[in-house]
Amino acid sequence: MSASHDIDREEGLSFSPKFDASGLVTCVATDAATGDVLMVAHMNDEALRKTVATGEAWYFSRSRNALWRKGETSGQTQRVVEMRTDCDQDAIWIKVEQVGAACHTGRKSCFYRKVERDGADARLAFIDDDRLFDPSMVYKK
Amino acid sequence: MSASHDIDREEGLSFSPKFDASGLVTCVATDAATGDVLMVAHMNDEALRKTVATGEAWYFSRSRNALWRKGETSGQTQRVVEMRTDCDQDAIWIKVEQVGAACHTGRKSCFYRKVERDGADARLAFIDDDRLFDPSMVYKK
Repeated sequence: MSASHDIDREEGLSFSPKFDASGLVTCVATDAATGDVLMVAHMNDEALRKTVATGEAWYFSRSRNALWRKGETSGQTQRVVEMRTDCDQDAIWIKVEQVGAACHTGRKSCFYRKVERDGADARLAFIDDDRLFDPSMVYKK
Repeated sequence: MSASHDIDREEGLSFSPKFDASGLVTCVATDAATGDVLMVAHMNDEALRKTVATGEAWYFSRSRNALWRKGETSGQTQRVVEMRTDCDQDAIWIKVEQVGAACHTGRKSCFYRKVERDGADARLAFIDDDRLFDPSMVYKK
């Protein structure tokens, strides 16, 4: 990529997402009310377009290799309040109104454990880990 | 990965980051005071360890293929107030006290443009885009 192309991407008003080799950009969803990070996921071109067009969050699931409207199974949808992109346009930030919980474990956020120093190593500790739904009920077949 | 391994990773207290094929996890840095997303970057095992050990953000630069202490050139360091990991431990969230600006363009956050619907397409609009430093001065050789 030329330097002028870099400058266009960083300083221009054209939305030209820089997809990775798998055709994806990283998307961070934060709670519009609290600023907490709810989840980190991925979007392909179609998920981006649907998110912009509908005002609801769509993602691309790498594990299921499929487009995915957030909440289509669980009902825990995300209404997009604001969408931003970063300097080199390989990441997206959406501020959302989360219905219920973002995490498939039933917690509001996927980030329900702190990483803490433990001597020369690190361990986890639960934080904000109340379950808002029972995954065995929501995702039952 | 077995289902029991998944449960350990999601519900356990052992920090066992799930690195991608390049040995990286995604890291989201937010402003501890405002909740704004400052940047999305990557950490390898060494960057994670150094971040935990020092309380300052270290990343791995994919473009430079090198470990990188945030602010080592610019002076715009990040003190880590809290570190979390997500359900499947392939993403990290750090809340930081940002010295100056996180973005190499001189803005506080890399996310200085909104994505807005424009008919069937999308366009960008600047937001929170004041420059806190002049990159041509900070990164001059």
